[in-house]
Amino acid sequence: MTASPALSTPRLATPDLLRSVFRQHAAGVAVITASDGSRGSRPVGFTATSLVSVSAEPPMLSFGIGLGSSSWPAVSEAAHVGVHILGEHQQELAATFARSGADRFAAPTAWREGPEGVPVLDGALAWLVCRIVARVPAGDHRIVIAEAVVGDRAEEGRPLLYHQGRFNALRD
Amino acid sequence: MTASPALSTPRLATPDLLRSVFRQHAAGVAVITASDGSRGSRPVGFTATSLVSVSAEPPMLSFGIGLGSSSWPAVSEAAHVGVHILGEHQQELAATFARSGADRFAAPTAWREGPEGVPVLDGALAWLVCRIVARVPAGDHRIVIAEAVVGDRAEEGRPLLYHQGRFNALRD
Repeated sequence: MTASPALSTPRLATPDLLRSVFRQHAAGVAVITASDGSRGSRPVGFTATSLVSVSAEPPMLSFGIGLGSSSWPAVSEAAHVGVHILGEHQQELAATFARSGADRFAAPTAWREGPEGVPVLDGALAWLVCRIVARVPAGDHRIVIAEAVVGDRAEEGRPLLYHQGRFNALRD
Repeated sequence: MTASPALSTPRLATPDLLRSVFRQHAAGVAVITASDGSRGSRPVGFTATSLVSVSAEPPMLSFGIGLGSSSWPAVSEAAHVGVHILGEHQQELAATFARSGADRFAAPTAWREGPEGVPVLDGALAWLVCRIVARVPAGDHRIVIAEAVVGDRAEEGRPLLYHQGRFNALRD
């Protein structure tokens, strides 16, 4: 393996170059949920590969959301969101929450109303209900920064991964 | 496998809970570099598991950095940073850039000065030189938002991963 992109002929960064660079990057898979207050507390949610831990004290995380996302109107108004780290057994759930047009909370999705009225999905490796503290403009997306309020995690489990446009898992 | 954290007994979010939740999360591994203008353009850099693509148009990304990081003084002043997505063959490099006290740019680290004077590491799956557009306060960290300027990627390669406190790789 001789992965050594030529420094002598770098390419100007375009949306296509950024996309091809990040196709080399692997990420864990999460589902973000919220309650849509403007539509009778209808649950909304989407699959995110941009979840990261940000701060230990206070405990904070962030994720990105596109301004064109069907969940953005609710997330733009919500005080709280649900954050779920998916296991490798939840590939179908991840696909459901990435598919447009589907009723993402219909069976077989298992969920219930959790703290602060936030939809909490069953079976994730870990979940948190978080209070949104900022929605930072960044091009065609917003970076949502949120402080963890309450949550729990499974004792064990293997995470679902995303790489080169498809789901994957850990080797070891 | 019955990963189903009890919704009935959620725990109040503490730094420890956030840490244990994110131990379930897997992430790709990157090295961020910069030139320390205040110290004769000395190269600085650190291993990051918080790199995410943020916006397509314009092409933007983000990463987190702790205020206690040895690289923060340089990153707080730098106009540009280097972003490198590491391959599974670069575990030693990732460890070097996470180790305190080491001269991270001494041999066997292979690097050279790239566009905008940014240190560019050899052998990564992809690299970008980015212009910093914001350093957003978030607890004990800053979220650095940067716009990609120039870069390149290898045609193929397998990413290095981090999970449960150790390096890992993709299964498939």
